[in-house]
Amino acid sequence: MGVVLNLENGKRGSASIKELIGLTAADMGRVNELILSKAGSDVEMIPEIANHLISSGGKRLRPMVTLAAAQMFGYSGDGHVKLATSVEFMHTATLLHDDVVDESGMRRGKKTARMIWGNQASVLVGDFLLGQAFRMMVDVGSLDALDILSTAASIIAEGEVMQLAAAKNLETTEDEHFAVIKAKTAALFSAAAEVGPVIAAASRTDRAALRSYGMNLGLAFQLIDDALDYGGNSKELGKNVGDDFREGKVTLPVILAYRRGTAVEREFWKRAIETDAADDAALEKAIGLMTRHGAIADTIGRARHFGEIARDALAPLDATPQKAALVDVIDFCISRVG
Amino acid sequence: MGVVLNLENGKRGSASIKELIGLTAADMGRVNELILSKAGSDVEMIPEIANHLISSGGKRLRPMVTLAAAQMFGYSGDGHVKLATSVEFMHTATLLHDDVVDESGMRRGKKTARMIWGNQASVLVGDFLLGQAFRMMVDVGSLDALDILSTAASIIAEGEVMQLAAAKNLETTEDEHFAVIKAKTAALFSAAAEVGPVIAAASRTDRAALRSYGMNLGLAFQLIDDALDYGGNSKELGKNVGDDFREGKVTLPVILAYRRGTAVEREFWKRAIETDAADDAALEKAIGLMTRHGAIADTIGRARHFGEIARDALAPLDATPQKAALVDVIDFCISRVG
Repeated sequence: MGVVLNLENGKRGSASIKELIGLTAADMGRVNELILSKAGSDVEMIPEIANHLISSGGKRLRPMVTLAAAQMFGYSGDGHVKLATSVEFMHTATLLHDDVVDESGMRRGKKTARMIWGNQASVLVGDFLLGQAFRMMVDVGSLDALDILSTAASIIAEGEVMQLAAAKNLETTEDEHFAVIKAKTAALFSAAAEVGPVIAAASRTDRAALRSYGMNLGLAFQLIDDALDYGGNSKELGKNVGDDFREGKVTLPVILAYRRGTAVEREFWKRAIETDAADDAALEKAIGLMTRHGAIADTIGRARHFGEIARDALAPLDATPQKAALVDVIDFCISRVG
Repeated sequence: MGVVLNLENGKRGSASIKELIGLTAADMGRVNELILSKAGSDVEMIPEIANHLISSGGKRLRPMVTLAAAQMFGYSGDGHVKLATSVEFMHTATLLHDDVVDESGMRRGKKTARMIWGNQASVLVGDFLLGQAFRMMVDVGSLDALDILSTAASIIAEGEVMQLAAAKNLETTEDEHFAVIKAKTAALFSAAAEVGPVIAAASRTDRAALRSYGMNLGLAFQLIDDALDYGGNSKELGKNVGDDFREGKVTLPVILAYRRGTAVEREFWKRAIETDAADDAALEKAIGLMTRHGAIADTIGRARHFGEIARDALAPLDATPQKAALVDVIDFCISRVG
C-alpha cells in the first residue's frame, strides 16, 4: 500500500523496546507472577477471562514504563512491581469494558472476551480487575500514587463517555478529538510513568517530567494506532485494517480527510460513518481519500509532534539506561507505522 | 395476598429509620452536596445519568450507616462525609452495571439508565463513579479505610460473577446462595459500617463489631428484598412483584420452593426459570407453590436470623443514640415485608 511505503522514509531504523525489555525483565517476571495470582479467584470464570486477555500477547508497555521510571530514580523496594501490575489491570479492565461498548469482535487477533463469555461477564470481570488494582495500590501505601492512579481511573472513564457522546460526529474538531484521546489513552500512560518517581520519592520536577513524558507518549501512541487502522500491517496490529472504519469510529485520519474533503466527499464520509454502510469498497475509497488529502501522513506528523514533546520532557534528566530506554519507546511507537 | 398478611404478625410496629435520618441529617446534607459536585463533569451525559439514578429516591441507607458509625465513636472531622459519599457512589456504580448485566427495564419505579441512555453509557458512567469514589477515599487519606473499601469493590464484583455463573441454576444450595449475596450485597454494608470506627480511630473490637453488624444487616436486607419480590407492595418496592421471577433469578424463595417441591413442581420451576417461560400465570403458580412450602416465610426467617446476629454484634457497645438507630435499621429492613 503506497501510504505505508511513504511512511517508512521517516522511520528510525533502530527503534526498538529491546532495551526497555532487558532493563525490566526481572521485575516483569514478578509482575507476571502477581498478575496470575491477583487475577485468581475461586469463581472460575474470572481467571479464565482475565488470562484470555492477559495472555493474548499485549506488549505490556505500560507496566514496563512504570518499572523503568521507578528504577530511574533508584527505587529499591517492591512497590513498583505492585503499581505496575495495578496499571496493567486498569488497562485490562478498560479493554474489557471497551470491547463491550464498541461491540468489538476481535482484539489482538483473538476473539474478544465478550464474544466468548458474553458482555455481562466482561463488564463484571473488568470491575473485579479494577477492584484488585486498587487493592494492590492500597497495599503499596503511597497516597500520592493512589491519588494519581484513582484520578486516572476517573479521567479514563470520562474520556470514554466523551467518545461515546461524540460517536459518529464528523464535525468533531481536532482539538475535541485530542481531548478524548488525552483522557481515554494518554492519562493512563501519564499515570504509569509518574508513579515511578513518586514511589522513589523523587523531586516534584522529576515527577512533572515523567508525567509529561507519559502524557505525550500516550497521545503519540494512540494517533499511530489510529493511523495503523488505515495502513498498517494486520498481523502486527492484531486487528484487521479498517476495523475502526467499519465500527464508524471518528479517528484523526477520518477527521482530517473529512475537513479537507469536497462537499461530495463529505457526503461519502457521512454515509460510511453515520449509517454503518462501510463495506470493503468503501474502505478502499476511504483510504484513497485519506491518501489524497495527506490525512494519514499528517496524523503521523501529529504523533511525531507529541513524541518530540515527550522526548524533551525527559531531556533535563541525568543520562541513565532507563532514560535511554524510555526515549526508545517513543521511537518504537512511531516506527510501528511502516 | 395471604402470604403478606401472615408476615405482618411478625412485624415490629415501631420499626423505622427516623432516628437514623435525624442523627445524620446535617451530615447527609453535606453528602448530598458532595454527590452533586463529584458526579459533575463537562461531559453532559455523566451528571445526567448519575442524577437520574441518585435522585430516584433510594433510601441512602449505606451512607447513613457510615455516618452514624463514625459519629458513634466521636468522630469530628469531615472524612466520614467523603467516605459515605464514596460508599453511595460504589453502590450507584454497581446498580448501573447490574442493570446492564440483568437487562433490567425498571429500577425504583423509573426506567433504568440503560433503557434511556443505553448499555454503553451505563457501563462507562459506572466506571466514572467508581473512579470518583476512589478519589474521595484517597482524599480522606486513611489507608485502612481504603483497604476495606477497595477489598469490598473486588468482592462485590466477584459476587456478581459468581451469580452470573450460577444463573438459572436451580440446583444452587442455600449455602452457595448465601456466599453470593454475602459478596454482592453484604460486603458493601459491612465496609460502610466498618469505615466509621476506622476513621474515628476506634479499637479493633469496635471495628469488628461494626463489620459484623454491617455484614449481617446486608444479608438480612438482601433476603427481605428477595422475599418482597414475591409478596411485597409494588409501590413501596419501586419494582413490580415478580421482576426477579421474570428475569429467571434464582433467589432464596425459589431455592427453597424448588428443594421442597415434588418432581412435578421441580419441572415447573425448570421451565419457568430456565426457559424464560415466566408469564403472569406462572408467577401466580410460583407464589402459590412458595406459600404451600413456606418458602417466603422461611426466607424471612433466615433474614431474622441474620438480623439477630447483627443486633448482637452491637450489643457490647455503649448505649448511644447512634447504636439505637443502627439497631432500628435492622428492624426496619425486616419490617419492609408486610
